[in-house]
Amino acid sequence: MADLELTSLHASLTDRALNSMNFLNEVSHHYPDAISLAAGRPTEEFFALEDLHRYLDLFAEHLRAQGYDEAAVRRTIFQYGRTKGIIHHLVARNLAADEDVHVDPEAIVVTVGCQEAMVLTLRALRSGPEDVLLAISPTYVGITGAARLVDLAVRPVLGGPDGLDLDELVAAVKLARADGLRPRACYVMPDFANPSGLSLDVETRRQLLQVAAEEDLLLIEDNPYGLFPAQGHHHLPTLKSLDRSRRVIYLGSFAKTGLPGARVGYVVADQTVAGAGLLADELSKLKSMLTVNTSPVAQAVIGGKLLANDYSLVAANRREREIYATNLRAITDGLAARFPNGEITWTVPAGGFFVVVTVPFLVDDALLEKSAHEYGVLFTPMSHFYDRPVNALRLSCSSVTATQLEAALNRLAALITDQLVP
Amino acid sequence: MADLELTSLHASLTDRALNSMNFLNEVSHHYPDAISLAAGRPTEEFFALEDLHRYLDLFAEHLRAQGYDEAAVRRTIFQYGRTKGIIHHLVARNLAADEDVHVDPEAIVVTVGCQEAMVLTLRALRSGPEDVLLAISPTYVGITGAARLVDLAVRPVLGGPDGLDLDELVAAVKLARADGLRPRACYVMPDFANPSGLSLDVETRRQLLQVAAEEDLLLIEDNPYGLFPAQGHHHLPTLKSLDRSRRVIYLGSFAKTGLPGARVGYVVADQTVAGAGLLADELSKLKSMLTVNTSPVAQAVIGGKLLANDYSLVAANRREREIYATNLRAITDGLAARFPNGEITWTVPAGGFFVVVTVPFLVDDALLEKSAHEYGVLFTPMSHFYDRPVNALRLSCSSVTATQLEAALNRLAALITDQLVP
Repeated sequence: MADLELTSLHASLTDRALNSMNFLNEVSHHYPDAISLAAGRPTEEFFALEDLHRYLDLFAEHLRAQGYDEAAVRRTIFQYGRTKGIIHHLVARNLAADEDVHVDPEAIVVTVGCQEAMVLTLRALRSGPEDVLLAISPTYVGITGAARLVDLAVRPVLGGPDGLDLDELVAAVKLARADGLRPRACYVMPDFANPSGLSLDVETRRQLLQVAAEEDLLLIEDNPYGLFPAQGHHHLPTLKSLDRSRRVIYLGSFAKTGLPGARVGYVVADQTVAGAGLLADELSKLKSMLTVNTSPVAQAVIGGKLLANDYSLVAANRREREIYATNLRAITDGLAARFPNGEITWTVPAGGFFVVVTVPFLVDDALLEKSAHEYGVLFTPMSHFYDRPVNALRLSCSSVTATQLEAALNRLAALITDQLVP
Repeated sequence: MADLELTSLHASLTDRALNSMNFLNEVSHHYPDAISLAAGRPTEEFFALEDLHRYLDLFAEHLRAQGYDEAAVRRTIFQYGRTKGIIHHLVARNLAADEDVHVDPEAIVVTVGCQEAMVLTLRALRSGPEDVLLAISPTYVGITGAARLVDLAVRPVLGGPDGLDLDELVAAVKLARADGLRPRACYVMPDFANPSGLSLDVETRRQLLQVAAEEDLLLIEDNPYGLFPAQGHHHLPTLKSLDRSRRVIYLGSFAKTGLPGARVGYVVADQTVAGAGLLADELSKLKSMLTVNTSPVAQAVIGGKLLANDYSLVAANRREREIYATNLRAITDGLAARFPNGEITWTVPAGGFFVVVTVPFLVDDALLEKSAHEYGVLFTPMSHFYDRPVNALRLSCSSVTATQLEAALNRLAALITDQLVP
């Protein structure tokens, strides 16, 4: 007899959101020889162990330059530390350099990856069963999972072909309120979204801020891909850089631009809380009971990388930006060469890692397994980002070589062609 | 006008447990010249930056010895990785070496410090409002805080002078059930507990396992201090090493024995779940939405330290063990020298960091502030570990030199003497 019943454990454990990630990982473990256009992990081409040593040394040197004696340098890197982090001032300088976002470093909480930033934000905002999160659909599974952990209901808001439909958003707010619910925030990825690949134009961004003010709604802006524009495109202003009334909680990640293995991200929460200080300080209290603080060793590695690049991750990622832009172009050009007749369509994103391919048949987990087993190529069924079946799949350009990419597209084309045969 | 109301945020933010840690940190920041017998942080005497480099190199070398090529070594340390961790097999060898605990590495989840292990465990076990955690009182504030984050009620079970009263525990289980609640587990720190300093004798440990089986209760064993026995004492078998029926979820920390700044801990959850695998795998699903994975860089540092010491943290902490045992003795001897007349009493723990001093007056936060300001010494009011005022304070021996310790005891004696004057 088993020790525990699954039904006696938290409901999230049987939820699709938490099992989705697991399923996708398992498929890729079962078929290690399949080429993966599923993984959103960054390219491994420039990983170098000596960088870890160099970044650690640079950060220690930076502390010395700030007047820390050797004991204080060691204490800062080795000991338990400030809950909100030890590289907040470096992160603030990075935001100023790369995003024209200017915030008080005290409004930044350095987190264990962006995922912890999501959990902290949603934990703070979920005060009772009436609270609900709106999320532009299709929605990144990480925010859905974070919401499940804190028992926060998520209402998808159809994003449509432009990535955001403001009328849909306003309607969703009004409907939630009519249902007796309290929409706390809307989660949105304005730049090269995961999974849609879509970006909001600047005018839509301004209107979204306006709607948020009118509807008294916070916006949770997630920006892991903003530094990776496609060829001929550039980097648009983030919502946070346009935010004049502290409507935007900004989530940052160093997983794609820094070093995924450091697991360092952050949240900018400069909202004021009546009778308290900044929202960042409230998130910090939650963090003290979630992870105590983000590993200072890991923070030192990211801090060193920022210092090595004069605070600019655009500068730090020159080679990676080139690779992603080239690969993204290779996917859309490659699809055009293989499917010239219009029965298959795909997005042509302005940047990021992801292309969404729409096909005239259902793309489910069974098809993914078949693709892995019989065709040797992995993708992500878009159904994982909706609460329903869909005829689309997501391709990622980030962790394959040019040669692998061509082979993967051939294999995918074979699968699609075989599926199209009646 | 403020952007948000505190009352619209999660209730934990106004809870004593979350504000307690914050308050104590603030006092120590306000009075940096006060000597701290409050902090439970490890000694900083042996921190050395070159160890970080050495441990990282040792772990990389270990991967090569396992047959990893250079690309795989870099990928393992730099990339997103296995949710349950990359040093689980090294942790299992450490448990075998130091604790005579023998577990399948697959039953281990490497976490962001022990705090994340607590949150994962309580999140899994809290499925509805009827679930409740029992905790031996006085209770470590970290488990109370973790419970608050997942809306899990905690019922204290009076530990008494021996650290655990089995009749009280059985009564608490029955009372909770009579109240329509479901006691999921009992949290206990059998070795040199924080804050009481008390340890359970071996017979009590066996009886506790028996009671857990009879009452169908899980035990959450937290063991951050087990490797630090006092002079003339030794290390008793953990509950987990005596556990023959998977009653014990074991929480491990490397903060005191490894390196606090790595923020690496773990949970052993070898319980089976009907229709699924191990409880560890369910915790892993939760972790994938909480922190994705524990920084592989930080894990590599701890892995390297384990490798450098042939998996034994007893061996790695020879000097630290000596310091803590000497300091602990200096506190109890120093109190005896200063208070020979019996109006003040204190515990004489068999190990760990903490001595509890009982005084004939209330020890509240105001007294702590007065002590910091007027006497230059910091301690922890025991009221922080209860839900009520108490006449006792906790002293920690872990992060002071012998000279600081003598000065701190003089200052504390002055405070107490002044308080005793009617």
